[in-house]
Amino acid sequence: MTELRTLKVALLGCGNVGAQVARILMDDADTLASRTGAHLQLAGIAVRNIDAEREVDLPRDLFTTDAETLVKDADLVIELMGGLEPARSLILAAIQNGASVVTGNKALLAADGPALYEEADKAGVELSYEAAVAGAIPILRPIRDSLSGDRITRVLGIVNGTTNFILDQMDSTGAQFADALAEAQRLGYAEADPTADVEGLDAAAKAAILASLSFHTRFDLANVHCEGITGVSAADIAAAKEAGFVIKLLAIAEQLTDADGDDGVSVRVHPTLLPREHPLAAVRGAFNAVFIEAENAGELMFYGQGAGGTPTASAVLGDLVSAARRIVLGGPGRIESTTGHVPAFPIDAVTTSYYIGLDVADQPGVLARIAQLFAEHGVSIEIMRQTIHRDADSNVESAELRIVTHRASEAALAATVKAVKGLDVINSVTSVLRVEGV
Amino acid sequence: MTELRTLKVALLGCGNVGAQVARILMDDADTLASRTGAHLQLAGIAVRNIDAEREVDLPRDLFTTDAETLVKDADLVIELMGGLEPARSLILAAIQNGASVVTGNKALLAADGPALYEEADKAGVELSYEAAVAGAIPILRPIRDSLSGDRITRVLGIVNGTTNFILDQMDSTGAQFADALAEAQRLGYAEADPTADVEGLDAAAKAAILASLSFHTRFDLANVHCEGITGVSAADIAAAKEAGFVIKLLAIAEQLTDADGDDGVSVRVHPTLLPREHPLAAVRGAFNAVFIEAENAGELMFYGQGAGGTPTASAVLGDLVSAARRIVLGGPGRIESTTGHVPAFPIDAVTTSYYIGLDVADQPGVLARIAQLFAEHGVSIEIMRQTIHRDADSNVESAELRIVTHRASEAALAATVKAVKGLDVINSVTSVLRVEGV
Repeated sequence: MTELRTLKVALLGCGNVGAQVARILMDDADTLASRTGAHLQLAGIAVRNIDAEREVDLPRDLFTTDAETLVKDADLVIELMGGLEPARSLILAAIQNGASVVTGNKALLAADGPALYEEADKAGVELSYEAAVAGAIPILRPIRDSLSGDRITRVLGIVNGTTNFILDQMDSTGAQFADALAEAQRLGYAEADPTADVEGLDAAAKAAILASLSFHTRFDLANVHCEGITGVSAADIAAAKEAGFVIKLLAIAEQLTDADGDDGVSVRVHPTLLPREHPLAAVRGAFNAVFIEAENAGELMFYGQGAGGTPTASAVLGDLVSAARRIVLGGPGRIESTTGHVPAFPIDAVTTSYYIGLDVADQPGVLARIAQLFAEHGVSIEIMRQTIHRDADSNVESAELRIVTHRASEAALAATVKAVKGLDVINSVTSVLRVEGV
Repeated sequence: MTELRTLKVALLGCGNVGAQVARILMDDADTLASRTGAHLQLAGIAVRNIDAEREVDLPRDLFTTDAETLVKDADLVIELMGGLEPARSLILAAIQNGASVVTGNKALLAADGPALYEEADKAGVELSYEAAVAGAIPILRPIRDSLSGDRITRVLGIVNGTTNFILDQMDSTGAQFADALAEAQRLGYAEADPTADVEGLDAAAKAAILASLSFHTRFDLANVHCEGITGVSAADIAAAKEAGFVIKLLAIAEQLTDADGDDGVSVRVHPTLLPREHPLAAVRGAFNAVFIEAENAGELMFYGQGAGGTPTASAVLGDLVSAARRIVLGGPGRIESTTGHVPAFPIDAVTTSYYIGLDVADQPGVLARIAQLFAEHGVSIEIMRQTIHRDADSNVESAELRIVTHRASEAALAATVKAVKGLDVINSVTSVLRVEGV
């Protein structure tokens, strides 16, 4: 056998994912060498605290607190520290030293990706980040490479396992949000401070990355309209269920034409009703999935584990092997594609179907008055369903009205809801949620 | 704007897919140029009959019957003629001229892929074939690149839309195979001669390709055990349904250890029972999906349209843009990975669960005798369920026995079934089907 060259790999960060990456680099060294044509030698692991407890038993002499020195000597750098600094500076240093970089840092990419891509292009190295979106699911490479001859029109993603687990719990057990969150925390699916997940911020960073690749244009967090799931009630879920829908937190990026006839893209994250027969509706628990509509390919879906140390390590290693192969075989780095030049639209430019739940007085003519009011605001009703409840003790009747609209603008819908609230026959507006996939 | 270079594209074949590829090359010329950094100029389309009717209106002067001459002058060759010859000779000529080749020819690849890959490697050009498996679904590139740092242990694919449509019709309407086939033919989902689809030959070619990429080893059609769906009856489907299963024609490639303790791979195509809650069970009609289990990534699924001119054209163009980018930017061709060196096992080496339907005499002690007989053959029963039918007219009772076994070898199962048939209390063995996903 011919002698293989050795490529030095620096690992920055040794949390869940990092520890598994280190383990696989050592356990599967021979397989990885045969696939890349080079020994991938784990040169060191930079951490803040060498003595911290870790999931995997790793040789102590691999650890260092001096990330700068470790990066200087590496051919390949894997950044799994998270956060903006020092991750950004270390990645830039690696690129400037001619190392290819693999990162899973969605927050950094969503905040500052373009500057990093430019540096990588300039230095002729690869910057890859499959692990940053939807964990183990190969989604970025298919969008960038496999669909490079097609035009993506829409991306709908379940890209946050924590919120999907919570919504799934609420759907299957009838639990309230707070109880489902507590259960997710107990099982380790949600962090002690769940803000980034439940407020949709994690999904928003992923939405920006997905939108940038899908529409060949740079989008960042500021372009993403973001609503979390803290306002979703057990009653919302139950009503959706009865109407044949399931509520999912979706990251959405879609091509659309605004009221002025201009083409652009809306990037947004919000709780969304999906018909139960939609392929995304069956994505349960902590799983992730990304549903893509493309002009020629039609509907595609990519499904798998969205988090977890070992699954996410698979995505990191796929990027690492690809980058290493390129070093061995030569050839250009992967180029950022920014030929799309489409503007990001604010949420006002979006038209979707809406689901509206109303608690109304049970009087003759109520339906007609509400329908009339929707029509006056140019919002067309697709489905209107009234359920009468009679309280057995008090014998008082109340009526619940559920409306699904045709596509309407955010503004028209808001004006309609405001007007509906002013009607004397309305006790309360119980929910207003967007609907996709109908 | 800087002047872009022009790459000449030769298209061989102008059926469903070819016509759409030609259309997109012309309609989306500017987008494709911006993505590749070169004009992709459709230099000509080689066909047998220039005057044949086509789905897309294409300039007559693009057509030629002289494929050899067309190929000689091309930078990129798209082969969509199908069949072994002259496709093979034309692809070899293209490679030897230094052109990169994109093909959707699964039969040729399954029969003779290795020789073609070797020629492409030698010439330093790309030979890509995403369209050959599962139409529009990006599946080969994710297996080859995204999962290059992982170890795939199992692939289960619904890769033939015709048989999936037929089985789906049988499942939802209770139709017999012949009627469902006729319906599929009426709707254009099945060809006049459906042999290649219903006998599993098309799926077998795809299984060989999936297995080769997944296990980094060359497998061809001769390594694939193949059973079609012509023997699946409405009664099989109904019984499966009642037991919570759906019957799918699966292409399976899985790593396993045989009775001698040797590691190898089984590649096979056969009708298979899947639990209704398995992600593949929901893949309906003419859709395709590939379910992958990998050591680190866990379970992944890729879903989309498996056939049709426009969807499949998306896969062809993805390959074309990637190959063109490489010509523009330089770098090595994609290398065939054959570092796995695992043997293909015959079907005898496989152990799976089995579903067995029996028509038995309704006598005391029958269950015990059958259970005893399974035990004697070393086949462990997981579920045994008896249903008694009474004919209202004759008042005669008959009993239907449904058995799901734990994993057993093909040989042990065959011996068991043979012995069961010899019992005097057995009227008939109504079905024997393999089960996956339990």
